[in-house]
Amino acid sequence: MISPALLDRARIVAGPEVGEAAVRGLAAATGRTVERGPVEGPFVYVGASLPDAVRGADLVWFHSVNAGTDALLRSGPWPDGVPLTRTVGRMGERIAQYVLGWVLAECQSVPEFAAQHARAEWRRIDSELVAGQTAVVHGIGRIGSAVATLLRACGIRTVAAARTPRPVPPGFDAVVPADEPVAARWVVAALPLTGATTGYFGADRFGAMGGATFLNVGRGATVDLGALEGALRSGAVGRAVLDVLADEPAAPGDACWRLPRTVVTSHSAGITADEDIVTDFAACLRELSAGRVPALTVDTGRGY
Amino acid sequence: MISPALLDRARIVAGPEVGEAAVRGLAAATGRTVERGPVEGPFVYVGASLPDAVRGADLVWFHSVNAGTDALLRSGPWPDGVPLTRTVGRMGERIAQYVLGWVLAECQSVPEFAAQHARAEWRRIDSELVAGQTAVVHGIGRIGSAVATLLRACGIRTVAAARTPRPVPPGFDAVVPADEPVAARWVVAALPLTGATTGYFGADRFGAMGGATFLNVGRGATVDLGALEGALRSGAVGRAVLDVLADEPAAPGDACWRLPRTVVTSHSAGITADEDIVTDFAACLRELSAGRVPALTVDTGRGY
Repeated sequence: MISPALLDRARIVAGPEVGEAAVRGLAAATGRTVERGPVEGPFVYVGASLPDAVRGADLVWFHSVNAGTDALLRSGPWPDGVPLTRTVGRMGERIAQYVLGWVLAECQSVPEFAAQHARAEWRRIDSELVAGQTAVVHGIGRIGSAVATLLRACGIRTVAAARTPRPVPPGFDAVVPADEPVAARWVVAALPLTGATTGYFGADRFGAMGGATFLNVGRGATVDLGALEGALRSGAVGRAVLDVLADEPAAPGDACWRLPRTVVTSHSAGITADEDIVTDFAACLRELSAGRVPALTVDTGRGY
Repeated sequence: MISPALLDRARIVAGPEVGEAAVRGLAAATGRTVERGPVEGPFVYVGASLPDAVRGADLVWFHSVNAGTDALLRSGPWPDGVPLTRTVGRMGERIAQYVLGWVLAECQSVPEFAAQHARAEWRRIDSELVAGQTAVVHGIGRIGSAVATLLRACGIRTVAAARTPRPVPPGFDAVVPADEPVAARWVVAALPLTGATTGYFGADRFGAMGGATFLNVGRGATVDLGALEGALRSGAVGRAVLDVLADEPAAPGDACWRLPRTVVTSHSAGITADEDIVTDFAACLRELSAGRVPALTVDTGRGY
């Protein structure tokens, strides 16, 4: 925990990833000067990565402009006692709309109708009603809960797959252990990337999906892409929508483009807007200044 | 109003549009025999159109297997004193999911991502968040209300465009006179086809849409297709999604396929399932047998 007094005299530095508009927004929202580093003396850093020059003893708090902090935490041991907070912004809402958008696109045959229209073809395609179907969500923090809440508004039964026992999270109808197979029409992955989630979706988990559509809005490396391909070919996974890959951007020759019944969407689901960075940084600053731990704090040991 | 005693001794006849599975379902749900006409004596008819043979004095009640009854009512003067009921089933829910599906498909660039995937191209496309946007819905009965309710669950402000003054209908945030221009991102048409709604969406109404996306899930003839084309070319209408046309099915040479930024979806939004016909007929039979007017009764003068 940093002392409010130290925080009060710390300078605020924005990394190169933070655009000018966001820097102006941060200054306006906090009423403080926001500098482009490096600076002398205690400072707060707002950025996407932790440059070596920032890794010194004078860093008192790091605010990530992204929600995912796996790359940051992989870049070296996290400096002792420096709080790490992150920007979530409206990402839960954005990702929830992405998931529901692709769920309904499949039920309403949106790509097929677009193709039919291009061929000037009138052919009835019956829609699929999602009410009463089941979605299992892996990764049940803020984003997973936002996804579940929106799917539920369409009458979908939402099941949280929990790696540790817990009560039913907000937006869910039920919680089950992550390894318990659940008959579901949809499997949504919203996991952070940690040592425990790398390759989490492998042959066993995909093999038990019973033809569900698999949507990944978490991290690409939680998926064993070879295992997914096998499951798509066997029918254990009916379709896949992948917003994230272990290696991004995918080159034109990447195997991902040749997966059957799959769409890859270039990490576009949960964009972070400048206003999200400003809002979340200002909220964290208020909390830290009052001596409280912000809700957006990352447990750097656990990784999320 | 038919007398419950007459209804009790009336035979039930299903038209040729009612499939065998639905006939069996009707018999099971009502505990009565369902015949294929014609029959002697008082009878109830379940069908899509009113054949001349059915138009006689012995018809005591007509149940339409469809929600739209415009074609039925156009086929001649409606027989005096014969109640007309209709099948809505889960159509509100189906059409609401169609509308939300196409709204989110546009915001999430579903057709663009599908095309990009086919080209093995990784290119970021920013999504659009619908929360805080406005949708105006014309046609604010059961279906319009179901559409509004679902759009609202995504944070969209829903405005009912009412042809007659009324309180705010269920699912809506506000009600305005139908001719009052409203700045909106989405305009949804769910109007029945009557004398008053034919050509309802003309040059004036389209010209005032300010770039909104226009979605028609009501009846095709409520739209002046030439006026829509002009508005699409001028930008007054940003995009169009048309599930219904005045002339269906559209031939390959039909002008509708060449409208800019438009998708036509072959009257697939609000399919009627056999179970919908059975459920709604059985509910109407219960109401009529108890001497009540079913909620699914059509005002044959007004046309819906």
